[in-house]
Order: sequence, then C-alpha cells, then structure tokens
Amino acid sequence: MTSLLSALVGDDSIAALLNDAAQLHAMLAVERTLAEASAEVGWIAADSAIAIGEVVAAFSPDWDKLKQGMARDGVVVPELLAQLRRRLPEDHREALHKGATSQDIIDTALMLQVGKALVLLEPRIGDILARLTVLSGRFGQQPLMAHTRMQAALPTRWGAKLDSWAEPLGRHLKSLERMRSEVLVLQLGGPVGDRSSFGGHGDALAAAMACRLDLGNAPPWHATRDSIVGLGGRLALLTGTLGKIGADIALLAQTEVHALTLADGGGSSAMAHKSNPVAAETLVALARYNAGLAGTLQQAMVHEYERSGAAWTLEWLTLPPMLETTGASLRLAIQLLDQIRIT
Amino acid sequence: MTSLLSALVGDDSIAALLNDAAQLHAMLAVERTLAEASAEVGWIAADSAIAIGEVVAAFSPDWDKLKQGMARDGVVVPELLAQLRRRLPEDHREALHKGATSQDIIDTALMLQVGKALVLLEPRIGDILARLTVLSGRFGQQPLMAHTRMQAALPTRWGAKLDSWAEPLGRHLKSLERMRSEVLVLQLGGPVGDRSSFGGHGDALAAAMACRLDLGNAPPWHATRDSIVGLGGRLALLTGTLGKIGADIALLAQTEVHALTLADGGGSSAMAHKSNPVAAETLVALARYNAGLAGTLQQAMVHEYERSGAAWTLEWLTLPPMLETTGASLRLAIQLLDQIRIT
Amino acid sequence: MTSLLSALVGDDSIAALLNDAAQLHAMLAVERTLAEASAEVGWIAADSAIAIGEVVAAFSPDWDKLKQGMARDGVVVPELLAQLRRRLPEDHREALHKGATSQDIIDTALMLQVGKALVLLEPRIGDILARLTVLSGRFGQQPLMAHTRMQAALPTRWGAKLDSWAEPLGRHLKSLERMRSEVLVLQLGGPVGDRSSFGGHGDALAAAMACRLDLGNAPPWHATRDSIVGLGGRLALLTGTLGKIGADIALLAQTEVHALTLADGGGSSAMAHKSNPVAAETLVALARYNAGLAGTLQQAMVHEYERSGAAWTLEWLTLPPMLETTGASLRLAIQLLDQIRIT
Amino acid sequence: MTSLLSALVGDDSIAALLNDAAQLHAMLAVERTLAEASAEVGWIAADSAIAIGEVVAAFSPDWDKLKQGMARDGVVVPELLAQLRRRLPEDHREALHKGATSQDIIDTALMLQVGKALVLLEPRIGDILARLTVLSGRFGQQPLMAHTRMQAALPTRWGAKLDSWAEPLGRHLKSLERMRSEVLVLQLGGPVGDRSSFGGHGDALAAAMACRLDLGNAPPWHATRDSIVGLGGRLALLTGTLGKIGADIALLAQTEVHALTLADGGGSSAMAHKSNPVAAETLVALARYNAGLAGTLQQAMVHEYERSGAAWTLEWLTLPPMLETTGASLRLAIQLLDQIRIT
Repeated sequence: MTSLLSALVGDDSIAALLNDAAQLHAMLAVERTLAEASAEVGWIAADSAIAIGEVVAAFSPDWDKLKQGMARDGVVVPELLAQLRRRLPEDHREALHKGATSQDIIDTALMLQVGKALVLLEPRIGDILARLTVLSGRFGQQPLMAHTRMQAALPTRWGAKLDSWAEPLGRHLKSLERMRSEVLVLQLGGPVGDRSSFGGHGDALAAAMACRLDLGNAPPWHATRDSIVGLGGRLALLTGTLGKIGADIALLAQTEVHALTLADGGGSSAMAHKSNPVAAETLVALARYNAGLAGTLQQAMVHEYERSGAAWTLEWLTLPPMLETTGASLRLAIQLLDQIRIT
Repeated sequence: MTSLLSALVGDDSIAALLNDAAQLHAMLAVERTLAEASAEVGWIAADSAIAIGEVVAAFSPDWDKLKQGMARDGVVVPELLAQLRRRLPEDHREALHKGATSQDIIDTALMLQVGKALVLLEPRIGDILARLTVLSGRFGQQPLMAHTRMQAALPTRWGAKLDSWAEPLGRHLKSLERMRSEVLVLQLGGPVGDRSSFGGHGDALAAAMACRLDLGNAPPWHATRDSIVGLGGRLALLTGTLGKIGADIALLAQTEVHALTLADGGGSSAMAHKSNPVAAETLVALARYNAGLAGTLQQAMVHEYERSGAAWTLEWLTLPPMLETTGASLRLAIQLLDQIRIT
Repeated sequence: MTSLLSALVGDDSIAALLNDAAQLHAMLAVERTLAEASAEVGWIAADSAIAIGEVVAAFSPDWDKLKQGMARDGVVVPELLAQLRRRLPEDHREALHKGATSQDIIDTALMLQVGKALVLLEPRIGDILARLTVLSGRFGQQPLMAHTRMQAALPTRWGAKLDSWAEPLGRHLKSLERMRSEVLVLQLGGPVGDRSSFGGHGDALAAAMACRLDLGNAPPWHATRDSIVGLGGRLALLTGTLGKIGADIALLAQTEVHALTLADGGGSSAMAHKSNPVAAETLVALARYNAGLAGTLQQAMVHEYERSGAAWTLEWLTLPPMLETTGASLRLAIQLLDQIRIT
Repeated sequence: MTSLLSALVGDDSIAALLNDAAQLHAMLAVERTLAEASAEVGWIAADSAIAIGEVVAAFSPDWDKLKQGMARDGVVVPELLAQLRRRLPEDHREALHKGATSQDIIDTALMLQVGKALVLLEPRIGDILARLTVLSGRFGQQPLMAHTRMQAALPTRWGAKLDSWAEPLGRHLKSLERMRSEVLVLQLGGPVGDRSSFGGHGDALAAAMACRLDLGNAPPWHATRDSIVGLGGRLALLTGTLGKIGADIALLAQTEVHALTLADGGGSSAMAHKSNPVAAETLVALARYNAGLAGTLQQAMVHEYERSGAAWTLEWLTLPPMLETTGASLRLAIQLLDQIRIT
C-alpha cells in the first residue's frame, strides 16, 4: 500500500506492531524464552540459556540476508537462526531453538503481536461506545425519521439509532476479551507438531513458555488454524459493524435527507461547496475489504498434512492487513462520531 | 442445485428444516406465539389469540399467491398475513401481527429453524469425535510418516494426527453450544425496530415470546447482524476443519503414499482399477465453498438504515446453503472415517 | 433455495436449462454424438453407433440409482453408463463411451447447457438496452441532480445517467458473444486428458464431435479451467452492472430525493404507505452474491493433477447459481426499468 | 506487508510502478497533458499550458501535506492542486485542472501505471512459455504417471502435462494484449462525469489527451468500473493458472511420488534433509489470495451514483496488490521452472 493510501485507510499504531522490527523482536523474545524455559525444565544447560539471552539482547540482524532467507526458505527462521548461531559460542549453538521448528517461533511471535494489537483495539471500541453514550444523552430523545428498504418509514428517536450502533460493539468487545484466552496461545510442537522432539520435556516446556510469555497453553496447532481464522472473522464483524455505522451516516448526511451534517467533511477538487462524508465512505470500503479478506482467510483452513506452506502463507497475506484495517476503521469511526452534528 | 448434485453435496435432513414448508411452519408458529404473548401482556384480547391460533392450526396456504407476494414485496409476510386475515373473523383481524413487522416474523422463524439445525449438526460432530476416539484407541501408537510443506518429514504416530483432527471439532462443539444462547434470540422490533409500535408492551411481549419459543431474549437486531454472520463464520470454520481432514485423507490415500486405503472409494467411467477418495475431495470442495459464502455473508454486515432489503436478501442467499453444506460435510466426514483403513 | 426465495431471486427459464433433466439430456446428446463421430472416424462400428443412438433415444433413467451413483462416484456418468449398457446388445456395449472419460461427457454437456443459457441471457441485455434507449429518447434532456460521494454535486441530464447504465451492458454483450467461440468448446481428452485412449482417432473425433454439437474445437481442458472461471467472472461483471443500476434507482427513489418513483413497488406488512424498491434492492443483493461466487469460483483454478475432484466439484457448486442469478438479475432489471417513472 | 514477507510474495519491479512516487509522477503527467491538450483545443491559453508544464517539471511535493490531504479529502488531488497552484503565477492558476475532477486525474494516472505494469508482466509470461517449450523439447516424450482425483491413473507423457500448463498462459497473453486497447483508456468526465464542465471542448480534449498519453479514448467511466474489475479477474485467472502449476509441481515433487525434484528447495530450521517446494507452495498461496481479491474487487461494481467514495476506495485496496501478486507469481513461476529436474 502506498503511504498516501495508508494515510486514509491505514493505522500507524497497528502497523508498528506488525512491521519487520516488531516481528523480529517478537521472534527473538520467543527464542530467548524457549531457551530460558528449556533450562528451567532441564532440556538445555542454564549457561546456554544465559548465552542465548545475551546474544538475543545484543542482536542486530543482517536484514538483506534475512530477506534472502525468507525468499529461499519460505520462512525467515532458518536464516535468523544461522545469524544468531554465528554469534553464539560453539558449545551453546545446539541449545538454541533446540527441538523447535520455525512454526513454533513464528506462530508464537504472531500471538505476541496480536495480543499487543488487541490491547490497542479494545480501548478504541470503548472510545466509540463512550461517544455514543454522550450522543445518546444529548440527542437520544430527538426524533429521527427511520428508513426501511431505502424509504422513509416512520419516526423513531435518535436513541434507538445510537443504541443499534452500540449493541454489537459491546458484543465485539466481549468476544475479543474472550479471544484473549482462547486464541492467544503458545505454539510449541517441534518439527512435525507432536512434541516428540523435546526429549520428553515438551509439555513442561510448553507450560513454562506459556507462563513466561503470558500466553495461554494449548496443544500444538500447527495445522489446526480455527483460532487464527476465527479471529479474522471477528475482526471482519467488527469492521462490518463500523461499516454499517458509516453507511448510515453517509445516508443521513445526504443533502436531501440532512438528518445530520459533518463538520470538516472532505473537499473536492472541482466543487468547492461540497463536504464529503469521507470517513463514513471509507468505513464502508474497509468493511467490504475485510469481509473479503475474512473469506479468503477461511480458505486457509484447508491446511494439508502437518504443515502447509500454501495455507500458512495465505494467512500471512490476509490476517495482518485485517488487523490494520480494523485499527483504521476504529480510528475513522472515532473521528467520524466527532464530526457529526445532529440537526 | 440439481438433485443429482445434491445427492453428493447436499443434506436431506438439513434441507428439510429449511424448505418452504419448514419456513411456513416456523413463521406460523411465530405469528401464533405473538398473538398468545400479546394476549398474555394485554396487548390484544384473549379471544383474538384463540381465533388466531385456530386459523394458524388449520391454515393451508395458497402457495402460488405466496410466491407472487414474495416476488412483489421482497418478503412473503404481507401476502401470508392477507391469506391468514381472510380466514379470521373480521374483529380479530387487527390483532394478528399487531405492532409487528415482517422482519420480526422472518428473523424469529429463522432462529427456530437454525435451532433445529444445530440440534442435528451437533450430534454429528459427536459422532465424528467418537470415531476418532475409536481409531485413536486402535491405531494411536502406530507410526505414520509426517509431512510438512508437502515433503516427508519425520515419523510421528497416528495418534498425533487423529488428535489434531479432533481438537478443533471440540472447539466448534463448544462454540456452537455457546451460540445457542448468544445467537438464537427473538427478533421483535416493530416496523422501525424500536418497539414503539406495541403500545408500551414491547419489552414484556418480547420476554413472553422468547420464553414461549424457547429462544433468548434480546433487543431488536433488525439492522445489527453480527450474530447471524458470526454463525456463518463458525459454520465455515467447521467445514474448514472437515476440509482439512478430507485433504489429509486424500493425500494419505495417494497411491504412492498409501498410509491408508479407502473401502468403497468412488469408481471411474474409464479406469476400473481406481478407488477414488470422493468423500475426501468433496469435503475439500465444501470447505472452499463455505469459506467463500462466509466471506459473502460478511458483506451483509453493511446493513443500511433500519432495514436493508439488499443486505437482508444477501443473507437469505448465503446462510441456508451454509447450513446445508455443513450438514453434508459432517455426513461425509462420518462416511469417510468409516471408509478409512489404516495400513 | 426454497421456491419462495426463488420467486424473488431465481429464474425459471435458466433453472430449466440446468436441472437434472436438462443435464441428463445434454449428457445423452454427448454420448450419442461421441458414438456417431466415433463411427464416422472409424473408431467404432456404424451399427454400434446406431444401436447407441436408439438406446439413448428411448432411455429413461432410474433416477434413484443415478443419485446413488453420484453419491458414490462423485460423478454420475459411471452409473449412467451402467444403465445405458444394460439396455444395449452386448456386442455394442464396448462401443459406448469408448475411449472417453466422465469429464469429457460432463464438461461437454455443460457447454451445451451454457450455450443455451447464453441464448436466453443475451436478448435480455438487448431488452434492457432497448428500454434505456426509449427512456433516453423521452427523458435524456431532462435535468437530474448528480451526486458524488453521497452528496448532491451539480446538475447533469438524465441522458448521461442512462448512457452510463447502457455502456457497460454493450461491453458485456460483446464479451459474451466473443465467449461463445472462446468458451463454448468441446471437451475430449479421455481418462488422463491426453487423447491417447482413442487409438489415434482423438483429434479427428474431437473435430467431428465439435462440428456435430456446434461447439468450438479445442485441446483437452480437463485441468485448465480458465475459460469456465472467466465466464463466471463475466457473469459477475454483468450482475454488478445491474446492481449498480439497482443501487442508483434505490437512491434516486428515496423519499427525500424523489428523482423518480416506482410504479408497483413492494408492500410492507406494517406500513401501508410504503412503496419499496424491491427489484432495485434485489439487484444489489444479487450483484454482491455473484461477486462472492465469482471469487469462490476463482479458487477452482488451483486444479491439481490431471483431474481434481475437489476443484471440479467447487465449479458445480458455483457456476450454475451464477448463471441463474444472472438470469434473475436481467429479469429484474427489465421489470425495474418498466417500473420507473422519472419525475 | 513487511519487507520480509515481500521478499517472498512481493515484486519490486511492479511495486515500483505503484508506489507514491510513481503515482505522483503519473498524476503530474495527466495534469500536464490536460493543460497541453486544453491549450491545443482552445480551452486554456497556450502560455498557461507552458507555465503549468514548467511547474510540473520542477515540482517537489510536500509529502506530509499530501498525506494530510488524502486523509481529509479521501483523494490526494485537491491538496496536490493546492501545492501546484501556489507555485503557479496567479493568472495561470485557473487553467490548471480546468474543468476536470480528481477522478479524471487518478483514474487516468492508474491507467498509465497499469499500462507500464502490463509491459512488465507480459514478457514474463513469454519467459515461462519459453521454458515450457524447452522442457517439452527435452522431456516431452518421457512417460509420466497421470493422476486423477488424487490417485495414480494411467501413464501419459510429460509433453501433455507441459502443454496443459502452457495453453492457458497463451490465452492470458492474448487476453492481456486485448485489454490494452479495451481497458487502458482515458478518464475524462469532469465533476459529475458528463463532460459538461469543459465548455463544449470535452470530446476534443479527451481525444487530444488520449493521443498524447497513448491511451485509448472512451466515454467517461467514473461510475462504470467493469473494465477495471475485469482486469482484476484476468489477473486472478493468470495467478490461478500459475497456482495450478505450483500445485502440480508440489505434488509431483512429493517424496513418495518423485516425478521431479527441485534444485535449491527451501531449507528447514529443524530438518536438514528437507528440500521444500517453497516457490510451488507460494504460487498456490498467491493464487488463492488473488482469487479472494478478485471476488472482493467485484463488490466494487456496485458503484452508487456518479461517484462512490466507498466503491472507489475498495478498488484502491484490491487492484494494486493484485498487480503485484501477479508480478510475484510470474517471477516465482520462472524461478520454479528453472528449479525442476525431471527424473
């Protein structure tokens, strides 16, 4: 996405949680935690964990080589490990990543990143709800012509409209909170996802890692992606709700309907008199975009064998933009609610 | 869908819950319950409710006229009411559907239909889990070559594979059970969705109807469709999980891999030696189909104003086939697990 | 789909070209033509072709067994052939379907069915264009307020609006006509799609069959589905164009905008004063539905190996409803244009 | 997208045609050409066109302000014009963008960008076809076990497989070439898309601009987006074809099938013996991603009124990544064909 387009439909805060540096940071945290927990359960030596921790702390990658590794291997971890190992004393090298597989690192790192994203997204839902409460307090009793099937129907009150915007947001908030425990779980399976590569320490290791990383514990989920895909579905429901608010506002702000006006609407290159409901329309666009991505992400459920490069890559193409789109939609909805002037 | 295709990818039991007769039956139940509850809360006279109950009980529609009404009005309820009213004594006619709107009837009827569908679907998940448990008991310790990124990786055991098939099914079961209380709720809003048309009896009426229909109570949700769309997403996750099982089985049954064989595989018109993994492939097809429908259904979240004929119709086009596809996938998965012979 | 829903969003004429009987009829035509052409090129005996023609002409299938065969084999052809063979004298049985595979029959039959569907669809586009021409003649110079970004912009004329509806329809018509020669082609490949099963007669046989069936000739396309999928994309563009017309009309017919009214709009169960733009909204719903199906059908491009049961079945689930949806959209657009009264 | 992920699934050459600088460059070219053509047809003074050309040639934007303008107006053009106008002598300011609207500039600029992208994409298709021809020459007669429905079927020859990969590519090439004349057309409509803002010079201006920009001429298509959406569909067909090749190669390279091997397959962090078909799997992922985007882009056909901010923004979110994905798929397919060793 161009940075121009991103100024309209992107979200810098979420993007910063999903960029190269953030992913690297999260992957390094997972490798270090894996080492610490491995030492804790007796799977590697304690001084190996210390050495690994030191290397990780001081690590500055060769980004060009990481990119080459990604292009060659389809995952960045083999090259990342090679770079880390070169910095490790030889007798600690084997302890790094011991028993683990790339997917353990990448999936767990993603969970850390998603967890941070949810921490940003949820208060924004709260901000929207707060604005709706204020509007309801001020305008709730004010009459509003209701429209069904695109025709004026009967008068209702603004309170009913504002409630109908708020209710699903309450449900999304509750659902996202629930997802914290159900979705944000450790990935640890080893090469073929059965934890057989950890010398009998697999379950203890998982428990120790989950605890240290503040993630839920769970059986390996290398090839069972319902939680990830379900998260995407929830994000699309959220942007869909915001898209409905955007659609309503664009309709209510129509010149001929004039049930509300928008302060600081967008300008036109050709028609100086116009005040365009830019944020409202963008919410609709983002709702439709995320709806589409949610359907595409669902295709990744058909994850063949113990690890599918195809299905997994498809997740990488779809979930991160869904997170950013959700952030942007929440940002725009806040901005839009601040713009509306009920007439 | 042709009945030939339906023999492969359809589900007669689910279809029977979603056909014309079932929808009519559910709508009539809602109208009758609305009348009973309206009498209970004092919104209509008790003898009107009795008269309505009698007419509903004896009702046999003019289907051709219902279809004409559907084509004309975009919903069947106005014509259905006209037919019912003609059978009612004149002084009870006003009591029928009093204060309600078409969407109250259709959405609530759909919830009744979906509730019945879930009653059919959930035990099938249980049947699959039971089969997986049996297979795990018999073959769990047997070695199996694991494959990652389409290459033989390292040996694992069948138990790990079978567990990875079962775990998401357990999550789906739990989630569907939760949806019973969160999704299966009454719709009652009146013409513009604010319950202002029930003379102050709206909330009491809703409570009484929900109780009688064994549905949850909820504020009107005419234009907030996250629960419906979320249900579709969950169905797609379920068929996605089954599609993953199908993909695995088709791969493991490959002539060259031969980790399992299929008893009674499909025949070919040209190659008598073949035993095709028909159910396995069909599970993949249905997973991809439902994934697509889930994305399309998400588009219906942008539900403009108090009622969108466009978004609502889009739900009708997508959710029912998702339910039937889910039923068919579960049916096929049961059949497929009965077919597999681990070698 | 229920027949109630079909009354709104279906198309009986297209449905009749895609139902069980129509598919059977087309498959029988292909088998008979295969026999005739095989005799013509010397691949089977002339009296075998005559015997096959007679059996086909008199054939009445056991539908229950056909359905069982479909469920078992994933394609109906093996069971269909078994039924036909039982009716053939023993010494002609081998000549039936000689060298061919199920997919040859089903794909070619589909091409015959699609060809007939296009014959129905194209004149409807013409009907719409004719109505737009008439409207343009009567109202083309009449002023109309243009709207951009959901705001009144500057006055234009109805002629510009009507032209913008007509132009893409002209492109679709041209494109569908081109597709007749590019898409409507014979399928003949034999079991593995290389024509090696026809004793050297494959190319001659294909030429003879294509000529007799009035289809284009082409190399086997068992696993290369771009033409089929591209057809679906074009149908979605067409329903998208009609959805845009529907959206415009629903907007222009808004109570507050009143740039047009609709004669015979849909009625409401609760609001007698309403005249709902049912056909307009349904066009939007169908456009979004077909857009989604087009994306799902695109997933079928990943057609593994020489024949994918998964990808092929996904086509069956998506292309036929796209054809019927297109028929319905054209039907509704004609109806809608007859309803509009420019004010 | 992170630059790590982009190293796998991105395409730097296409990305460079679609970035901020490239879009700005194209928009400036359109504004300058508009001025030159306006002078040519007598709509602005010749010295205004010269002044505009000079300002455009020397222009270096304030990017921060452009982004702010994009966020505020939903399009970048108003702020871009403000920056340009400040650099123009006052008596030439009115001549800049005279009669035009933002969409004229942005759509036409996009056509210039797409045209350049096609110039990059098409030779890559040729490169793939050339490789397939070479492979066919060397291995065409070599036997290959064909597989249908995921089972070994009957022997065929490599030539048939290679032909089936090449045929659709030939069709895509032909179709993309046709699209050059049908899709790559000027946009010029003025504020409400009827060319009424050009003082009667609209058609002449369009002809002059199209000629100078080497684009096709066409009526305004502000709200009729079938060409843009159809282009996306064709790109998805192309990546679908490449995804099919990827799927085939991943299957044929399976350890147990071993019909080919891949030189320089991807490495694993845990299993040193593996050679993963990374490019093949990535082709599948990109095919599914583009298929999904094609369906989402189809939703943009429902483009309300004379200009929809919602539908138009949805195009910006989907078409550019489709172009880059297509570039990446072609790049990966070339790389993959160079890797395969037929055994």
